[in-house]
Amino acid sequence: MKIILVGLGLIGGSVAKSLKQNTGHQVLGMDTDQDALLDACSCGAIDGKAAQEDLKTADLVYLCVYPEAALAFAREQGPLLPEGCVLTDACGVKAAVCAGMEELAGTGRYAYVAGHPMAGKERSGFGASDPSIFVGASYIIADTGAPGWAVERVEELARAMGFGRVVHTTPQRHDQMIAFTSQAPHALACAYVMSPRCPEHQGFSAGSYRDVSRVANINESLWSRLFLDNREALVEELDQLQKNIGAIRDAVAGEDEATLRRLLQTAAQIKRQYG
Amino acid sequence: MKIILVGLGLIGGSVAKSLKQNTGHQVLGMDTDQDALLDACSCGAIDGKAAQEDLKTADLVYLCVYPEAALAFAREQGPLLPEGCVLTDACGVKAAVCAGMEELAGTGRYAYVAGHPMAGKERSGFGASDPSIFVGASYIIADTGAPGWAVERVEELARAMGFGRVVHTTPQRHDQMIAFTSQAPHALACAYVMSPRCPEHQGFSAGSYRDVSRVANINESLWSRLFLDNREALVEELDQLQKNIGAIRDAVAGEDEATLRRLLQTAAQIKRQYG
Repeated sequence: MKIILVGLGLIGGSVAKSLKQNTGHQVLGMDTDQDALLDACSCGAIDGKAAQEDLKTADLVYLCVYPEAALAFAREQGPLLPEGCVLTDACGVKAAVCAGMEELAGTGRYAYVAGHPMAGKERSGFGASDPSIFVGASYIIADTGAPGWAVERVEELARAMGFGRVVHTTPQRHDQMIAFTSQAPHALACAYVMSPRCPEHQGFSAGSYRDVSRVANINESLWSRLFLDNREALVEELDQLQKNIGAIRDAVAGEDEATLRRLLQTAAQIKRQYG
Repeated sequence: MKIILVGLGLIGGSVAKSLKQNTGHQVLGMDTDQDALLDACSCGAIDGKAAQEDLKTADLVYLCVYPEAALAFAREQGPLLPEGCVLTDACGVKAAVCAGMEELAGTGRYAYVAGHPMAGKERSGFGASDPSIFVGASYIIADTGAPGWAVERVEELARAMGFGRVVHTTPQRHDQMIAFTSQAPHALACAYVMSPRCPEHQGFSAGSYRDVSRVANINESLWSRLFLDNREALVEELDQLQKNIGAIRDAVAGEDEATLRRLLQTAAQIKRQYG
């Protein structure tokens, strides 16, 4: 296959490296940042830079850019893609992206598959890319009525890249779950380190500080967009979190040991049962 | 030295094993749980069970029990300890324990040193004990006017057990810092997993879920007491956390991208600067 990667940041770079390591496909790259393209070429993560002409003969175009840029690409370049080409994305929010892609469906001949490789790390950019972040992770495909052959093409790549499982869901449920599993932890890590005590933590901190604060080293441009693009689900999750912290806080303030124990016991049981 | 460990749970068991591995001291144990004593004897973590007579010739008594039990021990058994004996503890809150010990100071001839080995894990009890949890960790000593030779005796043991550094502070500052670095993360991990989305997280979760939720598997008896014994500092920390989460939540709900980016950028800078 001729695969064109659009966006060679952390995810795009990792996908490129993984595809080159694990498949025999031709991998070409596009990026507005010439340095990223050069770096990717130099280290063999891509076979070369994709020219606009290459889009006309692509078998799969993989969008590893912010949601707006993904939709802009589909709007502007989608009409160039041939019949039988799969257009897929790695955006961390799905309802807004899928709705935008749905609107554009009549403008191109490609089949769109909505994906979300559930992997990342604190650092961003091609320099941080690393195909091992995918190994054992979940690859989520949001159901948008894509044809089976197109979904299968994306699933095959996911398996080749070492993902541990492919999870199918709706765009709405994806966004609700991601608000809980990914966006809320990032929001609360940020809220946590903004305590006036944080600058003095050295010598007083151990595993729980390290783990809860880890993702506070956030890419604010990316995450601001992800938070806003998933506004409704994230606000619901943060309201829930505030309510639960408030319950613990009130039990502590009111010296209500029975209630406090019950709350902590409930949490411990949930964690033990659901992992 | 003849060292008597009071309480052979996760911390006491780990201290016992570490002292036997790394020093030539005689290590005796006391525990209300006969099984824990038997397990500790069987695996060589202690040289034997301490009789009350042993207290009269102890060089160091190490309290690895809940704060109330530590104070009860000092009240009831403290008068038996000889001149030159160090009584030290591993309690995770220090202001209340130090105040209680101060009140008892006239009832015994021992020197009290207030300690907090900053280590732990999700599981509790002797079966979970493991001396490697101490390696590289901080050992906090709360200054209560203990004589230098007694503090030095505890510091020597801390170094022998592999602690990375000994940090001296006041009991009040200890409790403020611990509210931030340890108790707040435990409270928020519990609040987090109480979301209705938690039971369905499998397949949608990755590193940030795992890290933020890790310590929710909490020992509710221990942590309820720790939270209540450090009520004022913890409530202040949780109020701060609620305020910061609220600021992020309001920026998301109000689609105020500039404010949201500024908040996330502030957090990222703090994390990068202070680790």
